[in-house]
Parts: sequence; structure tokens; C-alpha cells
Amino acid sequence: MISIAILGFGVVGSGVAEVISENSKDFAKRLGEEIDIKHILDLRSFPDHPLGDRVTSNFDEILSDEDVKIVVETMGGSHPAYDFSKKALLAGKSVVTSNKEVVASFGAELIDTARKNGVGYFFEASVGGGIPIIRPMWQCLASNKIVSVAGILNGTCNYILTKMEKEQTDFSVALRQAQELGYAERDPSADIGGADTNRKISILTSLAFGKHVYPDMIKCEGITDITYDDIAFARKRGCSIKLLGISKKASDGKVYAMTAPYLVPESNSLASVSDVYNGILVVGNMVQDVLFCGRGAGSLPTASAVVADVLDAAENPGKSIGWANEQADFIGSTDDNETVCYVRTGADAEKIRAVFGNTDIDEIGSESVFFTEKMKESELENKLSKLGEKYVKIRVLE
Amino acid sequence: MISIAILGFGVVGSGVAEVISENSKDFAKRLGEEIDIKHILDLRSFPDHPLGDRVTSNFDEILSDEDVKIVVETMGGSHPAYDFSKKALLAGKSVVTSNKEVVASFGAELIDTARKNGVGYFFEASVGGGIPIIRPMWQCLASNKIVSVAGILNGTCNYILTKMEKEQTDFSVALRQAQELGYAERDPSADIGGADTNRKISILTSLAFGKHVYPDMIKCEGITDITYDDIAFARKRGCSIKLLGISKKASDGKVYAMTAPYLVPESNSLASVSDVYNGILVVGNMVQDVLFCGRGAGSLPTASAVVADVLDAAENPGKSIGWANEQADFIGSTDDNETVCYVRTGADAEKIRAVFGNTDIDEIGSESVFFTEKMKESELENKLSKLGEKYVKIRVLE
Repeated sequence: MISIAILGFGVVGSGVAEVISENSKDFAKRLGEEIDIKHILDLRSFPDHPLGDRVTSNFDEILSDEDVKIVVETMGGSHPAYDFSKKALLAGKSVVTSNKEVVASFGAELIDTARKNGVGYFFEASVGGGIPIIRPMWQCLASNKIVSVAGILNGTCNYILTKMEKEQTDFSVALRQAQELGYAERDPSADIGGADTNRKISILTSLAFGKHVYPDMIKCEGITDITYDDIAFARKRGCSIKLLGISKKASDGKVYAMTAPYLVPESNSLASVSDVYNGILVVGNMVQDVLFCGRGAGSLPTASAVVADVLDAAENPGKSIGWANEQADFIGSTDDNETVCYVRTGADAEKIRAVFGNTDIDEIGSESVFFTEKMKESELENKLSKLGEKYVKIRVLE
Repeated sequence: MISIAILGFGVVGSGVAEVISENSKDFAKRLGEEIDIKHILDLRSFPDHPLGDRVTSNFDEILSDEDVKIVVETMGGSHPAYDFSKKALLAGKSVVTSNKEVVASFGAELIDTARKNGVGYFFEASVGGGIPIIRPMWQCLASNKIVSVAGILNGTCNYILTKMEKEQTDFSVALRQAQELGYAERDPSADIGGADTNRKISILTSLAFGKHVYPDMIKCEGITDITYDDIAFARKRGCSIKLLGISKKASDGKVYAMTAPYLVPESNSLASVSDVYNGILVVGNMVQDVLFCGRGAGSLPTASAVVADVLDAAENPGKSIGWANEQADFIGSTDDNETVCYVRTGADAEKIRAVFGNTDIDEIGSESVFFTEKMKESELENKLSKLGEKYVKIRVLE
């Protein structure tokens, strides 16, 4: 019997119980013994759930139970999830988490704590829901230097952008539909503002380049300024608009990382990742481009990644996947990032040409749209400020 | 120093040497010691290669060298690759292979031999070239019962079919172009006849369902009968034609497996996997659909998967990934497989309606094309034989 505890019995935590119950015979066959959910930490009670008698609101009960070798943390939020995880690791228990906030903010420290205590800190479910991405990047791409990672990492935003394109609606209409279908929360700001994507790309960037990249080291823009007109214009130019978390190693040795909407050319495999799907494109110096794609959220898909980690923790308790316990020193300033941009502005063609030279300019309603040459973002901002009008800029993915 | 030997210094074998040379510092950092290619088995000599002095034509020299703990088998063909692999495993050396013929024909036996000798038999590179697929299926999807696997597993065929669609050419023209670009061999029969795909889907089916499925247990059709007209007609109905290796667990508990061209609806993520790319769509009972996509062949992509296995073998020599040493007893007869088909036939509309009922029929030149209802393949064949004319049938992916 392998005893585990689940911290937080919400969408993912209850999914973990369901996955374990549904496929329990397979797990017993694989591990040679059954998985038993001995404790569930939650402030609520679940009298009608078959595991209702396992629920406790006292974390110390779990911490002091020596039977429990694996703690599943599906609480969400930084505190007390971080504190409980740290205590569990120090007590010699492996921790499996789906909590991207904790991994993005405290990953290096918790990975290090796990190593020092001979246990594992597993976080496959923190990025891309059910899509295997952390382990493939770590293990199968071990033979590569990572060149870049670009991901559609937030299903809510992808659903909204796909909806806008397909149904020719504006942002607010698509957001409302997403909320009605449960794809967006009542307060959608962490999704549409980019913070959720930013946490996930900070995790993938840390893994890809070996030191901890904190979310506030990555420039973050959301999708709230994008209109249907932008999408329609992009479409005419053979592009979709996607919110991407992206990091790439440039020839100057720096890593440029960003969360922002991008125009993605149809020829790029990310362009066809639609609706609530997530897609992550990893480029290695040997394997070239590899795409991982699937449902980036949802109770059972995410729980299936958590349970895969539980099995790994049971089979390989001391396994260490992660990065050094040091803050990254390789992140370049966005000012130095070179990019082509699509720009929509109130400035007229004459003014635009005076600043940007002789460029093709189209009109959308009373606004002008055009593509810039490739230039550093500092130079671009400087030029845009000279237009003296409000603007929206969207980068073009190379 | 981790001493390895490479058997076969062709496209993949020399790629392995290149990957190890290119990223050697990273590997030394990860493993704590360097990887040394101590022997290379080949009948040819390579006087100008930096590793030319490691080349031997005597396998026993490698077998008897106790320094060598990992043998990389990149010879291709069943013999002597199988024999050498078996001997190496019996001698307590882990074996890493890219050889799908050996894995498809002798995988269960070699996996079992490895287990019994406390070493590993690693074959990530045998399917999908550089795409991580064996390990993600094994480890990250461990928490799922696999429902189905469908893959574009042969880059040559996918290149030809993409070329036919894009350039509106017939099969023979596209094949010639593929040969000129080195994407198809002078004797392309194993690719275009489906045998290569069939080996790979037999490996994935064995892994997914737990017992050995031999290639001759899977019905195999190639792409040589497909014309541009078929592709154009499919396009009009919102489908691409792809050669798929496919296996799915049906409600009767049987696994239906097949290598055949399919009409893939645009809504399926495999439809957008084009050119030389491979894509593998795995459906699990919890995670639902996950797509893995990348370059399925080529020296460095394939070698990068081999080297990832070498690193895993170095870190976890006794690791066992695979399936039981038993022949699969769950493969259903294709006769019982239920499917919708696209049919092109010399029979006229009256005859088709007499056999298939009142169905929409289009004309392509002097031939008729139509879609059947969903029915068992045995019933379909029976009806088609009643038409008394030659026909081409292509299944429609659900």
C-alpha cells in the first residue's frame, strides 16, 4: 500500500482521486501495490464523497503520518501551498504539484530542498495540464541545447482568440461566452492579462536554460487590446493571433523571454492550435522543432499528469528534475529584443511614413495599420512615441 | 568516463557521434563524467573521421570489452542487429537502438532479456525519429488507459502526399521529387507500401496495450493507388489524405490496428501535420487527446533521441520500458472493424445505388466516387465485390 495525501480537494484534487479510482488496477499492476489516498486536506467537508472520511483540516496530521511518502499539492495560490510543500519535503516526503504559482515563484528552492532530503519535487502538471512537457523537455531533449520555447499556454485566451476569429466577434463578446462555458473565471484577469502564461513560460525557461527565471523578469502583455479587426487583418496576411509565452537564446548569448500576443504565420505549427488547446513548440539544436499539443487545463487531463508524477515518485522517490537554485543571469532586456511588429494607430499615413519610412499602410476604420521593419524594441518604442497617437502593437513570430 | 560502442556508422550512427561531440560539455555536466565513443563497428573504414581509429569490424572486441556498458545499435535490418543486441544484453550491457525492424520483430524478447540481466533496452528513436514519444507514452501517460494511437509515422509518404496536394501532381511525380531531395530511397517500397509505418505502429500498439503485436498481425496498405483526384476530392470535403498507423481499443475489448491511408478531417490535429513531419495522436481515458509532432527522420533528430537514451542508460542502467514477453491476444480481425470509406470505382451510379442504396455519387473522369455508410469491413468488401469493377477505397478517420 502506497499512502498519499492530497492537499486541496478542488477541481484538480478531486480529479486526482477520480483518476486513481478509475485506473487503480493498472497502477497496482505497475507498482506492485495499491495507491491509497489516506488523507485529504480541505477546510470543507465532503460527506457524500466515498473518501469523505479521509478529509481533515489539520495539515500536521498529514505531516506527522510516517506512512505518507507522497504529498499531492493541488491547492493553488502561493500560501500556504508553498509552506506545506516545504514542510513535507523537509519531512522526507516527495511532493507532486499542479501549482504553477508555487513552481514559478519558489521552484528552485523547493527542487533544492527535495534534492537535499533525498526526495522528489514533481511538477509536470504545472504547465500544459495533461500534456507531457516537463519530462520530455528534461529527459528526451537532454541531448539538445534548447534554442527556443514558444507556447500557447493558456486555454482561456486561446479559446477567446479562436472564437473572435471564427465568429467575427470582439473581445468582450468572446470573453463572455468563455465565462458562460466555464472556460474563463468570473475574474479573468490572470488569464487575459497574461500572468498565467507568464508563470508557465517562466517555469519552462528555467527548465530550458538551467537557472530560475522569476515571472517578474519576463515582460508580460495580455490580449485585452486586440480587436476583431486586428485578427481579420492578420488573417489576410496568413497569420493567426495567439497569446504566447516565448523564450529564445539569441546570438549574443542572452535569453529573450516574453509573454505577449503574436502574429503566428500559418506555416508555424502553433498557428493550428485552436480553442482550449495548448501547444508548446520546443526547438533543440539537434532535434530541431518538436510540438506538444493537448488540453492545457481541465480536471481529469491535469489530474492525469499529477497521477503520472505520483507513479514516478513511487517508483523513483529520489528523482530530481529541475534547475539550479540560482537566479537566472542570462535574461536580456526586452529593449534589445529584435522583432517585426504589426502596428495599429490613430496616426495618419503621412505621419507614419515620416517616422517609419516608405511602408505599406492599410486603413481599418479611422485607424492605420502597417508592419514595421525588424528592429530593436527600444528603437520601435521611440519611433512609435514620435507618432504622438495611441497605438496597439503586436509582434510577429519569426 | 562512460565508454560506449556504436554498431553501424551510417546516417544515424555518425549522427550520434556528432550529437555527442557537439553537446559533450552539457552531457559531462549532467552525468558527472564524459561520454567516450570507444568502439565503432563497421565494415567500412573512415580514415578521415576524427574517430576513425575507433572503427573495428570485429563485434567480439566490443562484446568482450568490460569498459563498454552501453551499446548503441544503429545498423538497421534484423540481422545481425538482433543477434548483436541480444549478445550485448546477455553480457550485461544496456542497448540503445534506433532500429524499428528489430524492435517490431524482437522487442518483447530483448526487453525481457534486458530485465533478466539488470540492464536496459532503450528504443525511443525507433518511432518518430527525434520526437519524444516512447517515454511520454510510458511515463507521463502511465496514469491513463490508452484508448487509441494514430500516427503519421513515415515522413517520406507524408512528403509525397503533401506535395501531391500542394502542387496538384500525381503520385509518381511527387515520388520522383522526394527521391531527388533524398526524402525517399531509390527503392522506396518499404515506405510507400506501408511496411515502415506498420513496424512503428506495431511498436506503439505493443507499448500502449502491453503485449507484443507483430507487424504481420496488422493489416497494411500503402499509398501507391492514391491519385491527385482523390486528394482534390478529399480537399473539397474538408479532408487531407494521410498514411496512418492506427490502433484503437473498441467497445468489444479488442484492439483494431491498421496501416492505411485515411481521409483526415481538418478538425483533427493530424490533418495539419505536413511535409516530412511526423505526428502522433495519443488518446488516453483521462488526458483525452495529446499530439506529438516533429521531424520523424534525419540524422541529427534521430541521433538526438538515441543520445537521450544513452544518457538515460548511463543514469538508470536497470530501467525497463516496454511490454510483456507475450504475443498479443487482443488484436481484432480487420473484417470486424467498422469504418466509413471513400470509394472510387469504375462502376456507374446505377450499379452503386443498387448495392449501396441511395447515396451521393460524384464523377471523377470516367470513375464514380462516393462515401459509404459506417459498416464492418467484411460487409464493405462483400458489397464492393458486387460492383464487379476495380475500386480504390480509403477509410475516413473518425
